[in-house]
Amino acid sequence: MVQEPDIAPEPETEDDDAYALSPRTIAAILEAVEAGARETLVALMEPLHAADIADMLEQIDAADRAALIRLYDREFDGEILTELDEGIREEVIRILKPEVLAEAVRELDSDDVVDLLEDLEAEQRDSILGALTDRDRLAIEQSLEFPDYSAGRLMQREVVMAPEHWTVGEAIDYMRATEDLPDQFYHVILVDPRMKPVGKVALGKLMSSPRPVKLSDITDASFHVIPVTRPEADVAYAFNQYHLISAPVVDENERLVGVITIDDAMMVLDEEHEEDILRLAGVGEESSLSDTALETTRQRFPWLAVNLATAILASLVIAQFEAAIAQITALAVLMPIVASMGGNAGTQSLTVAVRALATRDLTGSNAWRVIRREAAVGLIMGVAFAVVMGIVGLIWFGSTTLGWVIFAAMIINMLAAALAGIGIPIVLEKLRVDPALASGTFVTTVTDVVGFFAFLGLASAVLL
Amino acid sequence: MVQEPDIAPEPETEDDDAYALSPRTIAAILEAVEAGARETLVALMEPLHAADIADMLEQIDAADRAALIRLYDREFDGEILTELDEGIREEVIRILKPEVLAEAVRELDSDDVVDLLEDLEAEQRDSILGALTDRDRLAIEQSLEFPDYSAGRLMQREVVMAPEHWTVGEAIDYMRATEDLPDQFYHVILVDPRMKPVGKVALGKLMSSPRPVKLSDITDASFHVIPVTRPEADVAYAFNQYHLISAPVVDENERLVGVITIDDAMMVLDEEHEEDILRLAGVGEESSLSDTALETTRQRFPWLAVNLATAILASLVIAQFEAAIAQITALAVLMPIVASMGGNAGTQSLTVAVRALATRDLTGSNAWRVIRREAAVGLIMGVAFAVVMGIVGLIWFGSTTLGWVIFAAMIINMLAAALAGIGIPIVLEKLRVDPALASGTFVTTVTDVVGFFAFLGLASAVLL
Repeated sequence: MVQEPDIAPEPETEDDDAYALSPRTIAAILEAVEAGARETLVALMEPLHAADIADMLEQIDAADRAALIRLYDREFDGEILTELDEGIREEVIRILKPEVLAEAVRELDSDDVVDLLEDLEAEQRDSILGALTDRDRLAIEQSLEFPDYSAGRLMQREVVMAPEHWTVGEAIDYMRATEDLPDQFYHVILVDPRMKPVGKVALGKLMSSPRPVKLSDITDASFHVIPVTRPEADVAYAFNQYHLISAPVVDENERLVGVITIDDAMMVLDEEHEEDILRLAGVGEESSLSDTALETTRQRFPWLAVNLATAILASLVIAQFEAAIAQITALAVLMPIVASMGGNAGTQSLTVAVRALATRDLTGSNAWRVIRREAAVGLIMGVAFAVVMGIVGLIWFGSTTLGWVIFAAMIINMLAAALAGIGIPIVLEKLRVDPALASGTFVTTVTDVVGFFAFLGLASAVLL
Repeated sequence: MVQEPDIAPEPETEDDDAYALSPRTIAAILEAVEAGARETLVALMEPLHAADIADMLEQIDAADRAALIRLYDREFDGEILTELDEGIREEVIRILKPEVLAEAVRELDSDDVVDLLEDLEAEQRDSILGALTDRDRLAIEQSLEFPDYSAGRLMQREVVMAPEHWTVGEAIDYMRATEDLPDQFYHVILVDPRMKPVGKVALGKLMSSPRPVKLSDITDASFHVIPVTRPEADVAYAFNQYHLISAPVVDENERLVGVITIDDAMMVLDEEHEEDILRLAGVGEESSLSDTALETTRQRFPWLAVNLATAILASLVIAQFEAAIAQITALAVLMPIVASMGGNAGTQSLTVAVRALATRDLTGSNAWRVIRREAAVGLIMGVAFAVVMGIVGLIWFGSTTLGWVIFAAMIINMLAAALAGIGIPIVLEKLRVDPALASGTFVTTVTDVVGFFAFLGLASAVLL
């Protein structure tokens, strides 16, 4: 029945079971594990989705995790593995009995096995491949030959396709007669005699069209074909931009080789966002809450080391004005304010720029206009905060000249912050360096150096 | 034909037409607009997706935009409106002739019209509602009564459903006999006699099952029902976590009222990420590259004002030690390094914490373990950088005591950074304040104040 049901709005209610995994459930599960109560454990885990079980395994500590997996034993579902964080996943694979692991992997779709294998070390990889049938192993080894993070790794190889000249009736009859149709598919891909995809027909459209209609007359308006070597980030962008549900993947001869569905693209999009946020903050992108303190230190250390170098650079600027500071200690009190405001304004500009570059909203066509806007914003905010700080400086230290010095330094640094914040990401993008990874360091170096130099330099010139 | 085609990997190639919208296309379009060449313009725009046209309209300047829209005139597609940024969208609606706007909106699905209307001012809203048929207007006004950013706003009201006792054959016959089936749907929702959804059947599964099979025997394993008042962020989380393609929406009596599909959820997920990144950087969340300088200033100003207040707070700490600085100016040179390292380490911790809270990886079950880990990381990095800085201080200023002072201050501040970075987001989340919005300011305040106080205080105690 197609129907638009009558609806009436209701007040928003506190919704407690939006997530299946409550702390209470976890506590009950851990209790069952401690008591060695296998049946209770299995009963508690049964209603949980593999993604929730994976989250739980990530949240509990290593000893509980090992005990739980040993007790859960052959109930362990392969899908849990695909949902686990990399580090925990390796640990879990080591704990699982070989026969349980083999059984778990055999249940998985081939694209999930590929996803699982690409992060594993050679030894674990071989033990999983060994558990598969020859045919599955061959298919997976072929997929693994595509570049990391390419469409070829992301696609499913099972495709439902039809010759372009077929009618709705022919397609339906064929599909209903076919034994091994995939469970989850949403479109029929139309191909020409050379296997080149020429369109796609949504299943819903197929269902609602009369039998004699030609498939080529009811194709989706929006049709995107993805080369097998396209980076997965670009695949995710296309799904997001064009609201795709599935898209055919082709080889270098434009022959259909697979299909990518939106759930895979959504996963990639999520990972890309995670990477952007963590890179902007100078955190290694492979970080996970279940990493040890040493692993975490190793990921974050390099960026702090770079920051130390740039901080020392800024200090060298201050050192040039030690004589001035010795005479007027107010300079030492006020100089961090100038640097801090510049650093924060620069971070605002650079975050907007990095994000706009990632979503391809910032391009050659509007770069100059955005740069002019950022400069204007920097100038407006610079003047506003310069007035405030000029007055603060005047009242606090009773010197009009000091007020004027901080006024001028603030304007200079806010303008520098705006230009560095927008310009550095654009230049890094041109140089094909990820702006999310490197911009922050450069921008704060600029604002520290310019801030200290402008403030202390002007003060030395005017006040001494 | 279901088939696993033979595939062979190929080397990664430079892929220039991953995006339909090249700077060359935009230049050609603007040339046509300037020449008033309507037919050329329409021909150039014809192959572009509405999302790409929207991107282009955002990238060109206001005068070109107005000229283009006037020349393009009645070719203007309603879908372009749904793809536009809010600010530009209002501008475009003002430029469009009333009859073109009416026609554009009439073509849209009702959920797209709702999405369009919720951001508009009353006057524009009324002019769009006036263009609709009574039936459509009523449906849209009902949807607008649901809370902002709730599942009710996100859902489509056209649902394909079937009684739970039907067979595959009955469902197919019914669907093929129904005239107004939606073009895009992926599941049939099973309902009980009280209209409560009890399962869903994928169209592909329906196609591949024999006619006598009962629908209730081939339902998807993963079935999630979404209350109509659930916030859209939680809806997006569920789609991402459970790899949903579509999910039924129910009212407070558990009656089916609509369906949400993954493309809507993906859009929300993307917006949530954008918000998180911009909030972490202290940028107003409604920001867009096409905002004017004044609008941008208004968005960013408040956060910089808060930062000014906290910077002054940090300066007050420095002011307590003016006497020490007057005697030993090396303190003024070195103190920003201690503060800067703390600020950056704190930002690393807080970004990981904010992200983990957003993805619900950080929960009551593992909070203490993560806090302990962050403290350990802070201590390890503190000691490492303290050794480096102690040596730098010693060599630069030739004072062993100064070396020890900076060594101790660095450890103290890195530990404070780690604890503030993890603790403040957790506390804010408990208080139901968005940690992405407010954590940064608090954390850098802590690291500035602790950094200056530890360093200058120890120096005063030991060196004077």
